Amino acid sequence: MIEITFPDGAVRQYEKGITAQEIAQSISEGLAKKILAAKVNGSVIESSRPIENDATLKLLTWEDPEGKATLWHSSAHLMAEALEAFYPGIKFGYGPPVENGFYYDVDLGGRLLTSEDFKKIETKMAELAAKNNPYIRREILKEEALNYFTEKGDGYKIETIHELKDGEITFYEQGNFTDLCRGPHLPHTGFIKAIKLMNIAGAYWKGDENNKQLTRIYGITFPRQKELDEYLQLLEEAKKRDHRKIGKDLELFIFDDDVGQGMPLWLPNGGAMIEELESLAKRTEERAGYHRVKSPHIAKESMYLKSGHLPFYAESMFPPMDVDGTKYYLKAMNCPHHHKIFSAVPRSYKDLPLRLAEYGTCYRYEQSGELFGLMRVRALNMNDAHIYCSEDQFEAEFRAVNEMYLKYFKIFGIEKYVMRFSTHDPEKLGKKYLDLPELWKKTEDMVRNVLINSDIPYVEVPDEAAFYGPKIDVQIWSVIGREFTLATNQVDFGQPLRFELTFQNKNNEPETPIVIHRAPLGTHERFIGFLIEHYAGNFPLWLAPRQVIILPISDRHLDYAEKILSMLRQERVRVEVDHRSEKIGKKIRDAEIKKIPYMLVVGDKEAQEEMVSVRKHGSGDQGQVSIREFITNINKEATVN
Amino acid sequence: MIEITFPDGAVRQYEKGITAQEIAQSISEGLAKKILAAKVNGSVIESSRPIENDATLKLLTWEDPEGKATLWHSSAHLMAEALEAFYPGIKFGYGPPVENGFYYDVDLGGRLLTSEDFKKIETKMAELAAKNNPYIRREILKEEALNYFTEKGDGYKIETIHELKDGEITFYEQGNFTDLCRGPHLPHTGFIKAIKLMNIAGAYWKGDENNKQLTRIYGITFPRQKELDEYLQLLEEAKKRDHRKIGKDLELFIFDDDVGQGMPLWLPNGGAMIEELESLAKRTEERAGYHRVKSPHIAKESMYLKSGHLPFYAESMFPPMDVDGTKYYLKAMNCPHHHKIFSAVPRSYKDLPLRLAEYGTCYRYEQSGELFGLMRVRALNMNDAHIYCSEDQFEAEFRAVNEMYLKYFKIFGIEKYVMRFSTHDPEKLGKKYLDLPELWKKTEDMVRNVLINSDIPYVEVPDEAAFYGPKIDVQIWSVIGREFTLATNQVDFGQPLRFELTFQNKNNEPETPIVIHRAPLGTHERFIGFLIEHYAGNFPLWLAPRQVIILPISDRHLDYAEKILSMLRQERVRVEVDHRSEKIGKKIRDAEIKKIPYMLVVGDKEAQEEMVSVRKHGSGDQGQVSIREFITNINKEATVN
Repeated sequence: MIEITFPDGAVRQYEKGITAQEIAQSISEGLAKKILAAKVNGSVIESSRPIENDATLKLLTWEDPEGKATLWHSSAHLMAEALEAFYPGIKFGYGPPVENGFYYDVDLGGRLLTSEDFKKIETKMAELAAKNNPYIRREILKEEALNYFTEKGDGYKIETIHELKDGEITFYEQGNFTDLCRGPHLPHTGFIKAIKLMNIAGAYWKGDENNKQLTRIYGITFPRQKELDEYLQLLEEAKKRDHRKIGKDLELFIFDDDVGQGMPLWLPNGGAMIEELESLAKRTEERAGYHRVKSPHIAKESMYLKSGHLPFYAESMFPPMDVDGTKYYLKAMNCPHHHKIFSAVPRSYKDLPLRLAEYGTCYRYEQSGELFGLMRVRALNMNDAHIYCSEDQFEAEFRAVNEMYLKYFKIFGIEKYVMRFSTHDPEKLGKKYLDLPELWKKTEDMVRNVLINSDIPYVEVPDEAAFYGPKIDVQIWSVIGREFTLATNQVDFGQPLRFELTFQNKNNEPETPIVIHRAPLGTHERFIGFLIEHYAGNFPLWLAPRQVIILPISDRHLDYAEKILSMLRQERVRVEVDHRSEKIGKKIRDAEIKKIPYMLVVGDKEAQEEMVSVRKHGSGDQGQVSIREFITNINKEATVN
Repeated sequence: MIEITFPDGAVRQYEKGITAQEIAQSISEGLAKKILAAKVNGSVIESSRPIENDATLKLLTWEDPEGKATLWHSSAHLMAEALEAFYPGIKFGYGPPVENGFYYDVDLGGRLLTSEDFKKIETKMAELAAKNNPYIRREILKEEALNYFTEKGDGYKIETIHELKDGEITFYEQGNFTDLCRGPHLPHTGFIKAIKLMNIAGAYWKGDENNKQLTRIYGITFPRQKELDEYLQLLEEAKKRDHRKIGKDLELFIFDDDVGQGMPLWLPNGGAMIEELESLAKRTEERAGYHRVKSPHIAKESMYLKSGHLPFYAESMFPPMDVDGTKYYLKAMNCPHHHKIFSAVPRSYKDLPLRLAEYGTCYRYEQSGELFGLMRVRALNMNDAHIYCSEDQFEAEFRAVNEMYLKYFKIFGIEKYVMRFSTHDPEKLGKKYLDLPELWKKTEDMVRNVLINSDIPYVEVPDEAAFYGPKIDVQIWSVIGREFTLATNQVDFGQPLRFELTFQNKNNEPETPIVIHRAPLGTHERFIGFLIEHYAGNFPLWLAPRQVIILPISDRHLDYAEKILSMLRQERVRVEVDHRSEKIGKKIRDAEIKKIPYMLVVGDKEAQEEMVSVRKHGSGDQGQVSIREFITNINKEATVN
């Protein structure tokens, strides 16, 4: 008998050689049907492989990232089988699962494949899937493997095998297709119920442009048709809400060739949103006892040698400038500057917690191919702060940070979120992790307590902490169900040591503070990118770049329109006048397209009575009110926090 | 007879060969005594030199910078005479007037001179001055000049003469001292009434460290003793108000070696001031119809080649970073980025004036020897904005900018200010100035009108405009009477052309806008430096980094203190608690030293009655009020604008 430990800590005994599939079956038939793979002692394997010794076990379903990856990986093989049926003799490069689905790079030998061919391939895949062909794993000798692909004439696989050693080579076979593959895979093809090929791209073999260009075919599959339908609907909706498109339509930001890739220029409308977000953050942080600081965007090489970012993080930093023989770097993070501010004056335990906040702009070098709209940029305006505290204060501080997140989630109507809590592995102390076992245990326990007590959904991921402390990655979902990584909260025992930060404790001794890195609103770039999709550009009044547009019925009402403009501007309302000599209907339609929350229609009657006729974006006429009343109403509506 | 044109436009006739001194005499004896030099046809000459042709004339007094410079230049010669009397055989380098006084670099031939010797030299200078020795100008042949200094044995003068040509060499002689000098000088030494030597420094001959180090002796002189007394008092007061000292005492900012020279790190107290200034600027600009934008701190080389900053401004820029083979530069100004934002979307005359504002951080390379506290830095946070307007709109826009200045002057109690209006010289159109004669005339007239109509004190300086338009340098005086250059307003016809900026005018044709560069609050660095001196660190409540400190009478009142802290913090008051177990008297004294505007003393009585005992910085006990009342009062006091 062997002992199997489940994720909830329960331990049960089973016969040696039992499979995860059989264990699931012993629990319920329904569960067994959902098991795509198994995590045994931290490694993902087929659910059909026998377990020979005591082990920890997690049954992986569609809900687990590793479950999805297994389904998609097996789907890549299935697509390969279908492709080979249509195009005998084609050769295969790599075929991995990716963030949404899978791809396979194929050498079609001069044949052309287009999206018009997708339908027949999908149909063939469905047909093959329905056969419930098992994925059969086979350990194979290098020589034998080479023989197989030499006979098949696939030079890509041969090249890959040459990089491997005997004992680490496995083949997977399903139906009529055999592939060189590390696995793991599904028990059989029948788990693949819904299939969609997405698109085609060119891709150099091994990503090297000196190599041959292969055809990369992307696809995605699901264990149920319903999930595919939802996914396609999400894509459709996301396309309409594409932050690049809406960002252009609403004149929020641009990229310019003379400024550089990945560095947005914020136009007035985007600037207004930035101001509102910053102002929200500043109010919130001021009330929570944060202090605002300001630091330059560059520092000397010596700073980053001290922090360890050089040489370890050098690839993500911009190259240096040589000033009078000294190298200066653009900052890729604000922490070293804040540590300098912490140590600028002697600190006592009475000064702690010290919370230093700055909307610092950081510069990170990303490969130009990795840049993507506001989502992946080189200039990052970060809602940054560093909290310096003692061990005693840590739990309360961490709780307060979490509460701030929840407050923001509420303000922005973010209903689905999860915190991914990465912890250390005690066996790797002194190697992968700073050798401070008690501090690790203490802080991880406190973080876990906070998460549990605040009822925040979280998943705990062992052995994924940073070198210097546990961390939390905050995932949020937009209203249409797309996932975004918002921010990372990190606990840091490492940098305070490197910078020799100390405070005088109650016993008059120097003590090293713990640092919490936090940025609940992430960066302007990514967060506004998220908000655009989340609101489809229909921002709440307080955040709307243009809040009010005044629409004079004819040119003779322009004076009155200007008068209202000036009154509203004094109240700091973001307002404009439609000066065009267009019909009022056209003006209203255009204002609707611009997604401006309020339209004020003014004509003879309004001018005479000092009134405005109010229209609300998307909900039409709201009747007449006096200007004063309108101001009171929208001031109330625009109050957030 | 010749015609002399005076600055007010009046023209009078005089005999050919008359001197400025004689003209002054003809007006009044009193005036003649004040004339230190004369500006004839734009060149400064001795007031005793005959005027042979029709000319423009300005009589220069102590009130004119050129008058001061003449007095100080002549004083340098006077000091040289006194030095030579004590130390025969010493040699002389250069001896020019400077911003405050003059210096002379001397080679003492191994002798040592210290500030202890100042008294006797000053006395000797006064004695020589009282002789009313005239400064006698003599044009001299190169050979003769060389002979003179060869005989005297002064290698420095010989070296200088070798760099000159026959026809441009003049000697000036007063009393027993003759110097190689271009002049101009005072009529006689009697104008120098008050003398003070300031300090001694080492200075390499011609600023080259491979040359011999000379002794630089600084001095200052005045036409009246009263002015020297006032100057010394000002220095004394300025020393007490030194922004570097107060900045350190109040924990406003630091410089750090790992960050780099000239790049302040703003500590929480400085950060609070920055926030208040920014917030004032944002409110003011929002109401004035400005839009906020945000741009990266770097741009590609191509941007600065387009703007012309490369190569013309390259020496003031940080060196480039090489990113994937493209050079990127830190921005030294925000305008190019703003121009890109202007041209991001098509603009019509209805969109103008477009006012783009940004607190942009610019980086400028200054020699490390030039850096000085916050006054000369390498990182500049600028209250920047660019106004794009049509010619029609220019005057109104320029007026509004000026009014904003006046508003700020009022807020900060700046009572003395002057605008230095630099205009073009029509003869240099197409050379020193863009060849747009009508636009020059039109905009200069409009600027002049605005200055006159708004009753702003200004001086007009011909032929000192920028290449691309007229400009105004704004000079302000701190409460103790020190002068600061706050900001520059520039009119720009040039960059819009280089960036091909256009808007569609009323005739549906593309037209180039005029740009106004403006930054009324200058940079955070320089303006806060000024404010520290101006207020001696006793900032008004709204600007004070720490507004309120709560002083518990004993430790048992800490809870109540914390309760008030939390209430005030919710109201966004910058508040702290003195947690120390010190006597209340000590706590009050320390709070006074920290210049915190309000102290709230809390003991048993206050806690019981939910009151606070208020003390005001510098004015003592203000009696007891409820917390609510205190909040209402200070909110009122802290309201600015």
